[in-house]
Amino acid sequence: MTNIDLIRALVERWATAVHAGDLEAVAKDHAADIVMFDVPPPHDGIRGIDAYRDAWPGFFAWQAAGGSFEVVELDVTAGSDVAFAWVLLRCDSPEGRARRPEKRLRVTLGLRKDRGRWSVHHEHHSFPLETA
Amino acid sequence: MTNIDLIRALVERWATAVHAGDLEAVAKDHAADIVMFDVPPPHDGIRGIDAYRDAWPGFFAWQAAGGSFEVVELDVTAGSDVAFAWVLLRCDSPEGRARRPEKRLRVTLGLRKDRGRWSVHHEHHSFPLETA
Repeated sequence: MTNIDLIRALVERWATAVHAGDLEAVAKDHAADIVMFDVPPPHDGIRGIDAYRDAWPGFFAWQAAGGSFEVVELDVTAGSDVAFAWVLLRCDSPEGRARRPEKRLRVTLGLRKDRGRWSVHHEHHSFPLETA
Repeated sequence: MTNIDLIRALVERWATAVHAGDLEAVAKDHAADIVMFDVPPPHDGIRGIDAYRDAWPGFFAWQAAGGSFEVVELDVTAGSDVAFAWVLLRCDSPEGRARRPEKRLRVTLGLRKDRGRWSVHHEHHSFPLETA
Protein backbone atom coordinates (compact mmCIF):
# COMPACT_ATOMS: atom_id res chain seq x y z
CA MET A 1 0.00 0.00 0.00
CA THR A 2 1.17 3.52 -0.77
CA ASN A 3 1.33 6.18 1.96
CA ILE A 4 -1.82 7.73 0.50
CA ASP A 5 -3.64 4.37 0.70
CA LEU A 6 -2.47 3.88 4.31
CA ILE A 7 -3.71 7.33 5.34
CA ARG A 8 -7.04 6.96 3.50
CA ALA A 9 -7.58 3.69 5.38
CA LEU A 10 -6.62 5.38 8.69
CA VAL A 11 -9.18 8.16 8.14
CA GLU A 12 -11.95 5.74 7.13
CA ARG A 13 -11.23 3.58 10.22
CA TRP A 14 -11.30 6.68 12.42
CA ALA A 15 -14.65 7.90 11.00
CA THR A 16 -16.19 4.44 11.46
CA ALA A 17 -14.92 4.35 15.07
CA VAL A 18 -16.35 7.84 15.77
CA HIS A 19 -19.77 6.75 14.52
CA ALA A 20 -19.56 3.53 16.56
CA GLY A 21 -18.45 5.42 19.70
CA ASP A 22 -15.33 3.23 20.02
CA LEU A 23 -12.91 5.49 21.94
CA GLU A 24 -9.94 3.09 21.76
CA ALA A 25 -10.19 2.92 17.97
CA VAL A 26 -10.78 6.69 17.65
CA ALA A 27 -7.60 7.48 19.62
CA LYS A 28 -5.48 4.57 18.33
CA ASP A 29 -3.64 6.36 15.50
CA HIS A 30 -3.20 9.66 17.37
CA ALA A 31 0.07 10.98 18.80
CA ALA A 32 0.72 11.79 22.47
CA ASP A 33 1.34 15.44 21.52
CA ILE A 34 -1.79 15.95 19.37
CA VAL A 35 -3.23 19.47 19.14
CA MET A 36 -6.93 19.43 18.24
CA PHE A 37 -9.00 22.45 17.23
CA ASP A 38 -12.48 21.13 18.07
CA VAL A 39 -15.86 22.59 17.00
CA PRO A 40 -16.47 24.07 20.51
CA PRO A 41 -13.85 25.94 22.62
CA PRO A 42 -11.23 26.03 24.14
CA HIS A 43 -9.94 28.74 21.79
CA ASP A 44 -6.31 27.64 22.05
CA GLY A 45 -7.03 23.98 21.33
CA ILE A 46 -7.18 20.63 23.05
CA ARG A 47 -3.61 19.55 23.81
CA GLY A 48 -2.35 16.02 24.33
CA ILE A 49 -3.89 12.59 23.89
CA ASP A 50 -5.58 12.53 27.34
CA ALA A 51 -7.48 15.77 26.58
CA TYR A 52 -8.25 14.43 23.07
CA ARG A 53 -9.83 11.30 24.57
CA ASP A 54 -11.87 13.43 26.99
CA ALA A 55 -13.34 15.42 24.07
CA TRP A 56 -15.27 12.46 22.61
CA PRO A 57 -17.78 10.89 25.07
CA GLY A 58 -20.35 13.72 24.85
CA PHE A 59 -20.24 13.53 21.06
CA PHE A 60 -20.60 9.72 21.12
CA ALA A 61 -23.86 10.11 23.08
CA TRP A 62 -25.16 12.40 20.29
CA GLN A 63 -24.03 9.90 17.61
CA ALA A 64 -25.81 7.07 19.43
CA ALA A 65 -29.03 9.12 19.39
CA GLY A 66 -29.09 9.08 15.56
CA GLY A 67 -26.26 11.37 14.40
CA SER A 68 -24.45 10.65 11.14
CA PHE A 69 -20.67 10.73 10.68
CA GLU A 70 -20.02 9.79 7.05
CA VAL A 71 -17.07 10.67 4.85
CA VAL A 72 -18.29 12.45 1.70
CA GLU A 73 -14.91 13.52 0.27
CA LEU A 74 -11.33 12.80 1.37
CA ASP A 75 -8.13 14.23 -0.09
CA VAL A 76 -4.65 13.13 1.07
CA THR A 77 -1.25 14.69 0.27
CA ALA A 78 1.63 12.53 1.54
CA GLY A 79 5.40 12.84 1.51
CA SER A 80 7.66 10.08 2.85
CA ASP A 81 7.16 11.04 6.52
CA VAL A 82 4.80 14.07 6.72
CA ALA A 83 1.27 14.31 5.30
CA PHE A 84 -1.94 16.28 5.48
CA ALA A 85 -5.52 15.37 4.62
CA TRP A 86 -8.84 17.18 4.41
CA VAL A 87 -12.21 15.53 4.85
CA LEU A 88 -15.79 16.65 4.29
CA LEU A 89 -18.33 14.68 6.36
CA ARG A 90 -22.06 14.50 6.86
CA CYS A 91 -22.43 15.07 10.59
CA ASP A 92 -26.02 15.79 11.50
CA SER A 93 -29.23 14.48 13.01
CA PRO A 94 -31.74 12.82 10.64
CA GLU A 95 -33.94 15.95 10.90
CA GLY A 96 -31.02 18.33 10.28
CA ARG A 97 -29.89 16.27 7.33
CA ALA A 98 -33.34 16.41 5.71
CA ARG A 99 -33.50 20.19 6.24
CA ARG A 100 -29.89 21.06 5.26
CA PRO A 101 -28.49 18.31 3.03
CA GLU A 102 -25.52 20.51 2.02
CA LYS A 103 -24.25 20.94 5.61
CA ARG A 104 -20.72 19.61 6.10
CA LEU A 105 -18.27 19.11 8.92
CA ARG A 106 -14.81 20.08 7.66
CA VAL A 107 -11.83 18.20 9.15
CA THR A 108 -8.14 18.77 8.41
CA LEU A 109 -5.49 16.32 9.66
CA GLY A 110 -1.71 16.70 9.98
CA LEU A 111 0.18 13.39 10.14
CA ARG A 112 3.70 12.09 10.67
CA LYS A 113 5.19 8.66 10.06
CA ASP A 114 6.70 7.62 13.39
CA ARG A 115 8.66 4.34 13.48
CA GLY A 116 7.03 3.19 10.23
CA ARG A 117 3.44 4.02 11.27
CA TRP A 118 1.36 7.07 10.36
CA SER A 119 -0.20 8.97 13.26
CA VAL A 120 -2.25 12.14 13.61
CA HIS A 121 -0.45 15.05 15.32
CA HIS A 122 -3.00 17.77 14.49
CA GLU A 123 -6.75 17.70 13.86
CA HIS A 124 -8.99 20.70 13.06
CA HIS A 125 -12.80 20.36 13.06
CA SER A 126 -15.28 23.09 12.11
CA PHE A 127 -18.65 23.91 10.63
CA PRO A 128 -19.02 27.00 8.43
CA LEU A 129 -20.31 30.01 10.40
CA GLU A 130 -23.61 30.92 8.71
CA THR A 131 -23.76 34.38 10.30
CA ALA A 132 -20.22 35.43 9.29
CA MET B 1 17.21 28.28 6.19
CA THR B 2 15.52 25.02 7.15
CA ASN B 3 12.13 24.05 5.71
CA ILE B 4 10.57 24.97 9.05
CA ASP B 5 12.18 28.43 8.93
CA LEU B 6 11.00 28.92 5.32
CA ILE B 7 7.41 27.98 6.21
CA ARG B 8 7.37 30.11 9.38
CA ALA B 9 8.51 33.08 7.27
CA LEU B 10 5.83 32.30 4.64
CA VAL B 11 3.07 32.28 7.31
CA GLU B 12 4.30 35.52 8.93
CA ARG B 13 4.46 37.22 5.50
CA TRP B 14 0.93 35.98 4.70
CA ALA B 15 -0.51 37.27 8.02
CA THR B 16 1.15 40.66 7.52
CA ALA B 17 -0.28 40.84 3.98
CA VAL B 18 -3.78 39.93 5.22
CA HIS B 19 -3.66 42.72 7.78
CA ALA B 20 -2.36 45.15 5.13
CA GLY B 21 -5.05 44.10 2.63
CA ASP B 22 -2.38 43.26 0.01
CA LEU B 23 -4.12 40.66 -2.17
CA GLU B 24 -1.09 39.92 -4.38
CA ALA B 25 1.04 39.12 -1.32
CA VAL B 26 -1.77 37.11 0.34
CA ALA B 27 -2.17 34.88 -2.74
CA LYS B 28 1.54 34.75 -3.74
CA ASP B 29 2.53 31.48 -2.04
CA HIS B 30 -0.75 29.67 -2.79
CA ALA B 31 -1.19 26.88 -5.33
CA ALA B 32 -3.56 26.96 -8.33
CA ASP B 33 -5.46 23.98 -6.87
CA ILE B 34 -5.89 25.32 -3.31
CA VAL B 35 -8.90 24.12 -1.31
CA MET B 36 -9.85 26.59 1.43
CA PHE B 37 -12.32 25.94 4.24
CA ASP B 38 -13.21 29.55 5.14
CA VAL B 39 -15.04 30.81 8.27
CA PRO B 40 -18.30 31.35 6.30
CA PRO B 41 -19.81 28.91 3.74
CA PRO B 42 -19.66 27.35 1.12
CA HIS B 43 -19.82 24.06 3.02
CA ASP B 44 -17.72 22.16 0.49
CA GLY B 45 -14.93 24.73 0.41
CA ILE B 46 -13.50 27.42 -1.83
CA ARG B 47 -11.71 25.69 -4.73
CA GLY B 48 -8.91 27.12 -6.84
CA ILE B 49 -6.78 30.24 -6.65
CA ASP B 50 -9.32 32.51 -8.41
CA ALA B 51 -12.02 31.68 -5.85
CA TYR B 52 -9.41 32.05 -3.05
CA ARG B 53 -8.59 35.57 -4.25
CA ASP B 54 -12.30 36.44 -4.41
CA ALA B 55 -12.71 35.45 -0.73
CA TRP B 56 -10.52 38.27 0.62
CA PRO B 57 -11.75 41.78 -0.36
CA GLY B 58 -14.70 41.84 2.07
CA PHE B 59 -12.43 40.79 4.91
CA PHE B 60 -9.83 43.42 3.96
CA ALA B 61 -12.50 46.12 4.35
CA TRP B 62 -13.14 44.85 7.91
CA GLN B 63 -9.39 44.79 8.64
CA ALA B 64 -9.04 48.37 7.39
CA ALA B 65 -11.81 49.42 9.81
CA GLY B 66 -9.68 48.38 12.82
CA GLY B 67 -9.57 44.58 12.82
CA SER B 68 -6.51 42.76 14.16
CA PHE B 69 -4.81 39.82 12.43
CA GLU B 70 -1.85 38.89 14.63
CA VAL B 71 -0.09 35.55 14.96
CA VAL B 72 -0.13 34.42 18.62
CA GLU B 73 1.22 30.87 18.16
CA LEU B 74 2.58 29.02 15.12
CA ASP B 75 3.63 25.38 14.89
CA VAL B 76 5.18 23.85 11.74
CA THR B 77 5.84 20.17 10.92
CA ALA B 78 7.87 19.78 7.72
CA GLY B 79 9.15 16.81 5.73
CA SER B 80 11.31 17.26 2.65
CA ASP B 81 8.39 18.11 0.32
CA VAL B 82 5.13 18.01 2.36
CA ALA B 83 4.34 20.03 5.50
CA PHE B 84 1.51 21.21 7.70
CA ALA B 85 1.23 24.13 10.10
CA TRP B 86 -1.30 25.37 12.62
CA VAL B 87 -1.69 28.98 13.68
CA LEU B 88 -3.63 30.75 16.43
CA LEU B 89 -4.36 34.42 15.64
CA ARG B 90 -5.98 37.40 17.28
CA CYS B 91 -8.63 38.39 14.74
CA ASP B 92 -11.09 40.82 16.21
CA SER B 93 -12.26 44.42 16.44
CA PRO B 94 -10.72 46.58 19.20
CA GLU B 95 -14.02 46.33 21.14
CA GLY B 96 -14.27 42.56 20.69
CA ARG B 97 -10.67 42.15 21.76
CA ALA B 98 -11.24 44.10 24.97
CA ARG B 99 -14.35 42.03 25.75
CA ARG B 100 -13.03 38.57 24.74
CA PRO B 101 -9.21 38.61 24.91
CA GLU B 102 -9.07 34.80 24.71
CA LYS B 103 -10.86 34.64 21.32
CA ARG B 104 -8.76 33.03 18.59
CA LEU B 105 -8.98 32.37 14.89
CA ARG B 106 -7.60 28.89 14.24
CA VAL B 107 -5.87 28.30 10.88
CA THR B 108 -4.40 25.04 9.57
CA LEU B 109 -2.25 24.99 6.42
CA GLY B 110 -1.20 22.09 4.18
CA LEU B 111 1.88 22.80 2.05
CA ARG B 112 3.95 21.19 -0.69
CA LYS B 113 7.38 22.05 -2.02
CA ASP B 114 6.90 22.55 -5.75
CA ARG B 115 10.03 23.17 -7.86
CA GLY B 116 12.01 24.15 -4.78
CA ARG B 117 9.41 26.53 -3.34
CA TRP B 118 6.84 25.91 -0.60
CA SER B 119 3.24 26.72 -1.45
CA VAL B 120 -0.09 26.34 0.34
CA HIS B 121 -2.45 23.73 -1.16
CA HIS B 122 -4.98 23.67 1.70
CA GLU B 123 -6.09 26.27 4.24
CA HIS B 124 -8.73 25.82 6.98
CA HIS B 125 -10.00 28.81 9.01
CA SER B 126 -12.46 28.65 11.91
CA PHE B 127 -13.60 30.17 15.16
CA PRO B 128 -14.77 27.89 17.98
CA LEU B 129 -18.57 27.55 18.03
CA GLU B 130 -19.61 28.89 21.44
CA THR B 131 -23.08 27.33 21.29
CA ALA B 132 -21.89 23.81 20.42
